[in-house]
Amino acid sequence: MKNSKFIVIEGLEGAGKTSAIQTVVDTLKQQGITDLAFTREPGGTPLAEKLRELIKQGIEGEKVTDKAELLMLYAARVQLVENVIKPALAQGKWVIGDRHDLSSQAYQGGGRGIDKALMKSLRDTVLADFKPDLTLYLDLDPAVGLARARARGELDRIEKESMDFFYRTRERYQALAKEDASIITIDASQDIDKVQADIRDVLNQWLTQENSAL
Amino acid sequence: MKNSKFIVIEGLEGAGKTSAIQTVVDTLKQQGITDLAFTREPGGTPLAEKLRELIKQGIEGEKVTDKAELLMLYAARVQLVENVIKPALAQGKWVIGDRHDLSSQAYQGGGRGIDKALMKSLRDTVLADFKPDLTLYLDLDPAVGLARARARGELDRIEKESMDFFYRTRERYQALAKEDASIITIDASQDIDKVQADIRDVLNQWLTQENSAL
Repeated sequence: MKNSKFIVIEGLEGAGKTSAIQTVVDTLKQQGITDLAFTREPGGTPLAEKLRELIKQGIEGEKVTDKAELLMLYAARVQLVENVIKPALAQGKWVIGDRHDLSSQAYQGGGRGIDKALMKSLRDTVLADFKPDLTLYLDLDPAVGLARARARGELDRIEKESMDFFYRTRERYQALAKEDASIITIDASQDIDKVQADIRDVLNQWLTQENSAL
Repeated sequence: MKNSKFIVIEGLEGAGKTSAIQTVVDTLKQQGITDLAFTREPGGTPLAEKLRELIKQGIEGEKVTDKAELLMLYAARVQLVENVIKPALAQGKWVIGDRHDLSSQAYQGGGRGIDKALMKSLRDTVLADFKPDLTLYLDLDPAVGLARARARGELDRIEKESMDFFYRTRERYQALAKEDASIITIDASQDIDKVQADIRDVLNQWLTQENSAL
């Protein structure tokens, strides 16, 4: 019997997702879990990557409506879930996701203020009962995260939003993390050593619980 | 006060939509309605045309899931409605559409068999109360229409579906036309002169009603 899991790293730009993913991989390997697959959203399949480009860069001279952005995100997500994530899990791989549905809930639901009923109806109809087994949400003041992201290079269409947008996004992340026991908040404002230690501790504790539940 | 209208031509491949659009334009011009805008779906904005390409051609080696296809169609549609159709109507133009939402209802709802609740929830949340003032549905046996379409050249991803798919699509078109008084069925199996005469008659009668309702 396979026992593969889908673990997602979430957070605002510059919160440290890439480093967190490395810590997750190291921790899993120490536990003997080495058959891993990696995804990023939006993207992760040829079609989803085409959609990522349209979402991230937009089209010169045309306003991308909030609803079109959301629909493209879900189109990319359903391709990734059906063509990559579910098959990988079925093969016994553990899947590590750089963002997943929670990003849409936070950015489009919180940041853009898209109606909650629409968000829920899209999520339910597109993903049904599919969800990550564990989500690590890296919580950080957007001002700090964006300064880091800016230092890394050019910003895309979404990263050029106002600070208000990112504060609304963080607020929604925090609210959703409180409601869902499978989302663990990591304080990403700490020193990187402490952030990594927190991730290791949370993950090891969760793995122990999952093992004893078998 | 503006009195512009959105008129849509619908039907299966090879049903004669292009010729029908010409007849609609000629009839409107005879009535002094000359400020027209034209749309086609999926497409009609730069972003929507990019999505059209992805929907029509797919991606080499990757299955386009039914849900992703539907979500991309609605992403393209919301761009077209918000950025093109509504502004044109607001400027007093009459908009003539080569396909609109009814195509998704028939092809994705009927042909692909996507759940009715999902179809309705997407339509309602994306388009709300926006709908064509008049739809002319060109009804034709798919076997006849596809033979015409094939004679015209290469078929795209959707046009390569099985005959069953097109019969289910036609059945849904017919059922929806019966339910909605703003959808008029034209018998597209007749000689082209008779089809054109029917379109002219239906349109002139509708214009008279619309005028007397003002």
